Amino acid sequence: MRAGDKRALARAITLVENRDALAYDLVREISPDTGRAYGIGVTGPPGVGKSSLISALVRHVRGKQRSVGVISVDPSSPFSQGALLGDRIRLADHFLDPDVFIRSMGSRGHLGGLAEATLQAMLVLDAAGKDLLFLETVGAGQGEVEVIGIADTVLLVLMPGSGDSVQALKAGIMEIPDVIAVNKMDHPAAKTMVNEVRSILTLDKERAWKPPIVLTEAVTGENVDVLWQKLEEHRRFLEENDELDARRRRNLAGEVFAVASFRAKAHLEHAVADDPELRRLLDEVQRRELDPLTAVREIMEKVFRIGDTNGSDPP
Amino acid sequence: MRAGDKRALARAITLVENRDALAYDLVREISPDTGRAYGIGVTGPPGVGKSSLISALVRHVRGKQRSVGVISVDPSSPFSQGALLGDRIRLADHFLDPDVFIRSMGSRGHLGGLAEATLQAMLVLDAAGKDLLFLETVGAGQGEVEVIGIADTVLLVLMPGSGDSVQALKAGIMEIPDVIAVNKMDHPAAKTMVNEVRSILTLDKERAWKPPIVLTEAVTGENVDVLWQKLEEHRRFLEENDELDARRRRNLAGEVFAVASFRAKAHLEHAVADDPELRRLLDEVQRRELDPLTAVREIMEKVFRIGDTNGSDPP
Repeated sequence: MRAGDKRALARAITLVENRDALAYDLVREISPDTGRAYGIGVTGPPGVGKSSLISALVRHVRGKQRSVGVISVDPSSPFSQGALLGDRIRLADHFLDPDVFIRSMGSRGHLGGLAEATLQAMLVLDAAGKDLLFLETVGAGQGEVEVIGIADTVLLVLMPGSGDSVQALKAGIMEIPDVIAVNKMDHPAAKTMVNEVRSILTLDKERAWKPPIVLTEAVTGENVDVLWQKLEEHRRFLEENDELDARRRRNLAGEVFAVASFRAKAHLEHAVADDPELRRLLDEVQRRELDPLTAVREIMEKVFRIGDTNGSDPP
Repeated sequence: MRAGDKRALARAITLVENRDALAYDLVREISPDTGRAYGIGVTGPPGVGKSSLISALVRHVRGKQRSVGVISVDPSSPFSQGALLGDRIRLADHFLDPDVFIRSMGSRGHLGGLAEATLQAMLVLDAAGKDLLFLETVGAGQGEVEVIGIADTVLLVLMPGSGDSVQALKAGIMEIPDVIAVNKMDHPAAKTMVNEVRSILTLDKERAWKPPIVLTEAVTGENVDVLWQKLEEHRRFLEENDELDARRRRNLAGEVFAVASFRAKAHLEHAVADDPELRRLLDEVQRRELDPLTAVREIMEKVFRIGDTNGSDPP
């Protein structure tokens, strides 16, 4: 696996996805060898061409002899099984390239905590010596934020028609990414979209790094070199300002925290499913014989042995 | 408060937002008197006119003498402090109407768990005798799903240009709502948007309730009566098929669960912040002296006294 053998990598990530007991030993063993790969998170609404853009970026960096891992947690991604014929053809080269490893994390990963499975898969690919890791996620909800939280550089992909995302950026609901690509640059409204996004970004004068906006055409590969250059510039910016280590420390702590929270939630689910008394509590709430907060309080005491958690610290 | 006194209601919801100890007693006391109000969740991307549409719906139902509560958890909503002059004028009537209570839940509510604060605020307004409760949320991420999970009927508001949301519906990433409004109907692309959404919905032939799509113009009030009719039809559909009680039971159980999960997470945050040993664990992960999964395992044991939670049940 450390040599980058594809079958070994695939087996390792399957262990992780299945929450196999061996995955734990594996991650513990490889952990000291991680931290070398550079992680690029690629996010954006479905249908904007994130996978095509990653595919084009992979082609570009393979020309520079960099080895690559791709993890997709986007259920609408062509990297998943549902690839269209055209996508399949475009992706085929990469699947045959021994220095490119592509994996989509499906719903199995979701059951076991997507953030957790993704974190581990990234560590596996990192230890396997991949220079660059692309992490594809959809949307900008809380779950996605936790998944993409492990990336060093975040690329947001939009296209003409991504009005909702532009509004979400404007309203401060979507976090400002490090680099923005407006894909499908041949669309007549592409430049209008760039201007809209630019006007939003200029409102934030405090930011030391000004997120560049690049018009791309993933299918033809147009401007993908410029996009890569901007991603590299962000990396250099982080490195030259001693920000990369700080960001990685924050990201890693955040991920550990997200995983622990998820596990607490999973533990709660198990407990409620298995315990007739806890299920009875929920029934009483449903019949309005018990108020919801008392139910929560009793559940917390029973499942976590936590007393009153109503905003104050536990005893 | 039960008589619907505005100042009393405002104070009660402030208790809830501040996670005041009295809020617990309050909710316990009023809980048996709840379950009469009908809750309509209004969701959609920022900028599509959700608040204007709610405002127009409130005007419409006030003509039918129905009392109304509005809770907005959308940070970009004009119901929040940042209302534009035009919005203020449109909202002013409602603020003066004794039978309409409007409240936005701010970031304070977020710190204490938005789902929890919203659930309690809805119970308060329900006990105060409001016939209809509108709950405004932004987006379609996981956090929003938990907040809107308490609604009996979910209305999704889109506008021409909401391409990202249409793609999210198409990809199955956004849940199908009960009613859809395409607002800003005078826009030349409004009908195209309706057709796009309709073609997505027709793919789902299994669904007993076919979500209607209504073109609206919130600012002029055009078609707001039709939209209200569709919302009422959905309510009747639920009632006539014995679905309303079942849905409410599911919703309430889901909310109790969401609140308990949030509290577990908050408890974890407190514990890590206060405990030097847990902070040291995170430091070790950051220096790659400890792998992330061992850190999670130790945190779980220390904070929740839970053993190996790696997918299996606790001892």
